[in-house]
Amino acid sequence: MSTHLSIPHGKTVQLGVDRPMRLDCGVDLGPFTLAYETYGSLNADRSNAVLICHALTGDQYVASPNPVTGKPGWWSDLIGPGKIVDTNRYFVICSNVLGGCMGSSGPYEVNPETGEPWGVTFPVITIGDMVRAQTLLVDHLGIETLFAVIGGSMGGMQVLEWCHSYPQRVFCAVPVATSYRHSAQNIAFHEVGRQAVMADPDWHNGDYHRHGTRPQRGLAVARMAAHITYLSEPALQRKFGRRLQDRQSVTYGFDADFQVESYLRYQGSAFVDRFDANSYLYITRAMDYFDLAGANGGVLAHAFRGTATRFCVVSFSSDWLFTTAESRAIVHALNANAANVSFVEVQSDKGHDAFLLDEPEFHQTLTGFLRSAAEQRGLPRGPVAAAV
Amino acid sequence: MSTHLSIPHGKTVQLGVDRPMRLDCGVDLGPFTLAYETYGSLNADRSNAVLICHALTGDQYVASPNPVTGKPGWWSDLIGPGKIVDTNRYFVICSNVLGGCMGSSGPYEVNPETGEPWGVTFPVITIGDMVRAQTLLVDHLGIETLFAVIGGSMGGMQVLEWCHSYPQRVFCAVPVATSYRHSAQNIAFHEVGRQAVMADPDWHNGDYHRHGTRPQRGLAVARMAAHITYLSEPALQRKFGRRLQDRQSVTYGFDADFQVESYLRYQGSAFVDRFDANSYLYITRAMDYFDLAGANGGVLAHAFRGTATRFCVVSFSSDWLFTTAESRAIVHALNANAANVSFVEVQSDKGHDAFLLDEPEFHQTLTGFLRSAAEQRGLPRGPVAAAV
Repeated sequence: MSTHLSIPHGKTVQLGVDRPMRLDCGVDLGPFTLAYETYGSLNADRSNAVLICHALTGDQYVASPNPVTGKPGWWSDLIGPGKIVDTNRYFVICSNVLGGCMGSSGPYEVNPETGEPWGVTFPVITIGDMVRAQTLLVDHLGIETLFAVIGGSMGGMQVLEWCHSYPQRVFCAVPVATSYRHSAQNIAFHEVGRQAVMADPDWHNGDYHRHGTRPQRGLAVARMAAHITYLSEPALQRKFGRRLQDRQSVTYGFDADFQVESYLRYQGSAFVDRFDANSYLYITRAMDYFDLAGANGGVLAHAFRGTATRFCVVSFSSDWLFTTAESRAIVHALNANAANVSFVEVQSDKGHDAFLLDEPEFHQTLTGFLRSAAEQRGLPRGPVAAAV
Repeated sequence: MSTHLSIPHGKTVQLGVDRPMRLDCGVDLGPFTLAYETYGSLNADRSNAVLICHALTGDQYVASPNPVTGKPGWWSDLIGPGKIVDTNRYFVICSNVLGGCMGSSGPYEVNPETGEPWGVTFPVITIGDMVRAQTLLVDHLGIETLFAVIGGSMGGMQVLEWCHSYPQRVFCAVPVATSYRHSAQNIAFHEVGRQAVMADPDWHNGDYHRHGTRPQRGLAVARMAAHITYLSEPALQRKFGRRLQDRQSVTYGFDADFQVESYLRYQGSAFVDRFDANSYLYITRAMDYFDLAGANGGVLAHAFRGTATRFCVVSFSSDWLFTTAESRAIVHALNANAANVSFVEVQSDKGHDAFLLDEPEFHQTLTGFLRSAAEQRGLPRGPVAAAV
């Protein structure tokens, strides 16, 4: 059991060098690093950029193999040459969020001022901070207006934050399986996860790098609890039911008698090999703090005043973590601004995870929306001549 | 922080003295102890006994103050003189389940053969074992047929087990907010709780009594995760929403900024003062193993063949732990046996916990059902002349 994650870095950029970035908590951060990947080429008028925003435990490897796990990119079904987000046509950008642990500045990385990992001395960040950092990356890439910003779950929160804070920089937006504010129940589940990490003596008040430990048991429990919320009861019943794991009858003990137990234990142990526990605390906290209604006097519609962005809002019928009701609230707020909005509730029994899975109705919806938006934007159909 | 729970014992009885009780796991247990409380008096023909079965973390103090917490009995709204289960009329019995930690034999108690606490050397028990032990208590009290067996959640599982295994001993039965088998999702949540306990180094493979420790942090995390499942999303939203705890704005830290976090932390820490971690493992396991359909060739209706018991099945609309669909499956199985069944889905936003709360529709249903059943049983309306 290694005490350190083995995390290779792809592309990185130093931001906030000339002028630090002011975080929502009041701290000035800079210089700081964002790690990112790009796919395809930016066109001559810099109008074909698509920003993909990742979820809580996602990363920048959206369409290329993850160097830690060796698995395909997490949305490689959607994104690539000839795919729905066609990298022959679009210039796709995905960065590891600020506070993440895949190369962007966060508690796992070294504080340049001390030469030690930040740990819990890293300032607490928000979805707003994540997006502010992304704007600096987009500036760095020489892009004024993004053709599209797309993301699911926490990625969808970032999409909404972009549309709220930088509406003129987003031509079209696809918030998927997300909400305009984290619900009480979701805060509660996150708090359970954080308490599981903090209860692990190997956490050492966040200073585990000094002790040569990692709070792996606590983080695994956090992941197990969270993982249940990503699925649905019918999907668990269909996938596992009460079937036993490699045995004919129960053992009258505390081993993983049931397949669902074995599956959950695997999810927990696989997760700690690729994720930093402090980063988990920071990113869950950022989600808890997200509240576009609260930030606008309690009126969500005010978050999107005068928006010209085209929206495609997608929810999944069995998602009980980010319910269709929350997507509807977003749609109503957009309608109140006479915005251009498509809304689809995809029928699926796969729960919240559906946004990462092969869901034809979702994929068809996204295909149609992007095709129409690209026409409106005047993007040519064929491969682009590269400007970058 | 004490390393031992302070648990006073009320009434106890030694059972399995002459002949040990065979457990489902094959172990012969005996002698063993059940701790119990009774309320009211048994009538001359011993026909007015009501057995109450408690839930996962409940106990025998159903209608009298809990000596550990000082709180009123957990169903004292329902049970007492002049109440719905009128102790002037009925003889009410409630025992701490086998495997529990309020005086009944279980991992927390001393193994008489070794003079040491059982810990995880206590045999793994089932709902069937809990009920078998209750039959010995009922025998001891000189009762052949119970007028009623009533219980919610795991208590409801015991009710169903009584009706399955000892149908001739149950005149009427009220399974509330329960299921005929533990679902994959519920097994998953229990497994998270067990892993949280076992991840705590103070658990010491269950031998914590020898080390003078208790896995309080792990057990608190387990309780926090479980507690979320006892509520409903709308109830959490109504009760807490995103309201902050004693502060005007978020602190950009990991303190309990939100009321819902503070509430959950309190639930976790209060629980460890009254409950034994090993007992939590055993009782969750017993629930996981419960499967009346599986035990009857996959056909739930076979579990109630030829039943003459009168049933009142109650579910709550917002209970997502033991859904109305599971109660309906019980009702369908009973209907297939032409059983006498009432079924009510109580409209409530309080989630699973509703069965413990002031729910007028539930209380009215129980009142009507018991009144009618008592008439059929020929119980006089007034107070009983005591036989015991």
